[in-house]
Amino acid sequence: MSQSQLATTISNENAEPHPLASQAISGGLCAIENVWVSGVHSGFKHCNKDLALIYFPKGATVVGVFTKNAIQSHHIKYDKKRLNEQATFKAIMINSGNANTFNGPKGDTDVQIMANTLASKLKIQPDEVLICSTGVIGVPMDLSNFDNQVDTLAHNLTAGDSIQAAEAIMTTDTKIKQAAIAFEIEGQLVHLAAIAKGSGMIHPNMGTMLSYLVTDLDLGQETLQQLLKASVNQSFNKISVDGDTSPNDTVLLASTNKVSVKPTKQHILIFQEKLTEICQMMAQEIVADGEGATKFVTVAVKGAADQADAEGIAKQVATSSLVKTAVYGQDANWGRVLSAIGQAQPDYLDPTKIQISFISEKGEILTCKNGQGLVFDEDLAYEILSETDITIAIDLGIGKSQIAVWTCDMTEDYIKINADYRS
Amino acid sequence: MSQSQLATTISNENAEPHPLASQAISGGLCAIENVWVSGVHSGFKHCNKDLALIYFPKGATVVGVFTKNAIQSHHIKYDKKRLNEQATFKAIMINSGNANTFNGPKGDTDVQIMANTLASKLKIQPDEVLICSTGVIGVPMDLSNFDNQVDTLAHNLTAGDSIQAAEAIMTTDTKIKQAAIAFEIEGQLVHLAAIAKGSGMIHPNMGTMLSYLVTDLDLGQETLQQLLKASVNQSFNKISVDGDTSPNDTVLLASTNKVSVKPTKQHILIFQEKLTEICQMMAQEIVADGEGATKFVTVAVKGAADQADAEGIAKQVATSSLVKTAVYGQDANWGRVLSAIGQAQPDYLDPTKIQISFISEKGEILTCKNGQGLVFDEDLAYEILSETDITIAIDLGIGKSQIAVWTCDMTEDYIKINADYRS
Repeated sequence: MSQSQLATTISNENAEPHPLASQAISGGLCAIENVWVSGVHSGFKHCNKDLALIYFPKGATVVGVFTKNAIQSHHIKYDKKRLNEQATFKAIMINSGNANTFNGPKGDTDVQIMANTLASKLKIQPDEVLICSTGVIGVPMDLSNFDNQVDTLAHNLTAGDSIQAAEAIMTTDTKIKQAAIAFEIEGQLVHLAAIAKGSGMIHPNMGTMLSYLVTDLDLGQETLQQLLKASVNQSFNKISVDGDTSPNDTVLLASTNKVSVKPTKQHILIFQEKLTEICQMMAQEIVADGEGATKFVTVAVKGAADQADAEGIAKQVATSSLVKTAVYGQDANWGRVLSAIGQAQPDYLDPTKIQISFISEKGEILTCKNGQGLVFDEDLAYEILSETDITIAIDLGIGKSQIAVWTCDMTEDYIKINADYRS
Repeated sequence: MSQSQLATTISNENAEPHPLASQAISGGLCAIENVWVSGVHSGFKHCNKDLALIYFPKGATVVGVFTKNAIQSHHIKYDKKRLNEQATFKAIMINSGNANTFNGPKGDTDVQIMANTLASKLKIQPDEVLICSTGVIGVPMDLSNFDNQVDTLAHNLTAGDSIQAAEAIMTTDTKIKQAAIAFEIEGQLVHLAAIAKGSGMIHPNMGTMLSYLVTDLDLGQETLQQLLKASVNQSFNKISVDGDTSPNDTVLLASTNKVSVKPTKQHILIFQEKLTEICQMMAQEIVADGEGATKFVTVAVKGAADQADAEGIAKQVATSSLVKTAVYGQDANWGRVLSAIGQAQPDYLDPTKIQISFISEKGEILTCKNGQGLVFDEDLAYEILSETDITIAIDLGIGKSQIAVWTCDMTEDYIKINADYRS
């Protein structure tokens, strides 16, 4: 996402503290000391990597946010219980290809077997292990050769780069999603890194995907949990690929606690901002890699009477199949945007004050104003929409509330990918 | 829709009165005496018919139900006002190709010009005319040659068949939607007929489309209004093509009042049932003709704790892009159905009691039970889903509430149609 473009349409809600810019660094999760990572092929998928491990030899404080879907994967019940009972963990193991969801009592048993197997290999306790799964729902896990698979996984651990784990958690993703940044708090260098997967079943309600974040800043489980929840709301909960949520969505944040600073409000706000920044990077990479997507779309709403109206409208526009197909067709079809605004049924709306613009690096075009369409240059509009990074900017002209959410266009390839995913 | 198939999965909520079966008759709206109809090409579309007229030389009592979208077409404001002020009308004129939505003060003026022009041709009063529009949003109407166009329209009036009007209200529809039935109340023959259009921007919230119904039963405006609202809830509000609603959706019911019966509860219930029947016929034809659709899909939910849960789940499943693409791929992907159930966040849900089946004329297959997937014959499942008429039957196993809603599959052609609709 072009930051300058976003800035022209909407300002950052948490703009208060202004620390030094963060610096992108390499290595992914391994940019943080005492984080070892591995990713291998183990048979849950036909041939690609499908088993990932994040290992904290000296332990890490872990917090998590999980799907709000009323059907929840077996691993989520397990992880929630573990996170409720303790703060420190040594390993997170993630498999892709099989969601381990809706597998009856065997589903619960399998989570425990996975944790036990890994713990035995790493010579740690089973309750120091968190487990995650993603993939096809309702297929029992085949763990017949799991002992050997985990052996390979453990032997491949590296402190160099987390790219193999980032690859091993992918399902229909076409791109590896990994980032790491460094920034200063109180003169001390803090690191924050993330990997994520997600491409379909993506919708704003919790983060409908998997993401694993690691930092070295010591803030304690309770504060980390609050910060993660807030950052997820500003990132993963603002994206949509297809309006569908998954029973497996999980975001975990781990801290190796190496860096200690005074837990002042100012310092916490700086970390919150950086956490939101890296979550937004992952969230935006997920929609940019949306199933079949050719365009990254920001829906920026301002001038709303309140935050609920802004959010309702932005999400309705971002999930409208008609808006998303029009963007794919590079058609400045503002009428569909308008319909979606109306469909959101906001508490306050004055149709004569609505303005809808399409923006990209090629320029900006205003399509309607004063309750009617404007005559605009269709060639320029087509050119603007031919870019891969588009903003639909909506000004409701009533109040001061604003929001930006992110989505992608909807293409024939989305249909193709999902018409034969399970088979 | 195969009625037997629906009956096996869900019983009719209004099963109380059991009158003689209704008989399909020909002529569409013209099956009712004193209903003249016309449809012509007038230039709102490039070459197809785009202007329709339903004329009641002896007047008719008219009631209507309109979109709940917060953005409403200019014609809707006008019609609501007219219907609020009087009960009897002589003409309904509908154009397709231009929605006359969001056109500022000119939009309102144009509705009045259209009514005035038609009234003058038919030698009736302008306030005896109702106007409807459907098509592209935000393009001012070109009425420069409207006088001549309405002249042609009036000259083409026929009492023989309403098929030309049914054709003239189509937009992306591929099939004409028209039906007429006759049935007895108190020994008297009552007629009820309908035309409809709709293919995209179809979602359960009011009827997101246009439909015009005519009967000869005299029940008075107030009763007709109540009956229409109830029947729309049982039909047009139970369909979804793409989750998008339109600012132009309108259902009008007109009665020529030729047939009088005692307005007993029993007689009204009979008419209600027949009205729901014909509304469901139109609603089902709309989803069967959904943009790019290859399959008609019934989502039948039973065993819900209450009606709100049943409806929430049915609509979530029916609007899930992932479920709809799986059906297109003929993939018994019950995991996606399960995810959609969970996403609906019903008040009461016991995952271990959920059963999901796929049903067609080729057979029925149960895919999950007791909180886990069943091993099922994938070849038979594929064969069942290869039919064009599919039921996804969900038993929540908790209570007695049930509902059926209708949708279609989602295909590459939906994308193609909508990527270049406006251009």
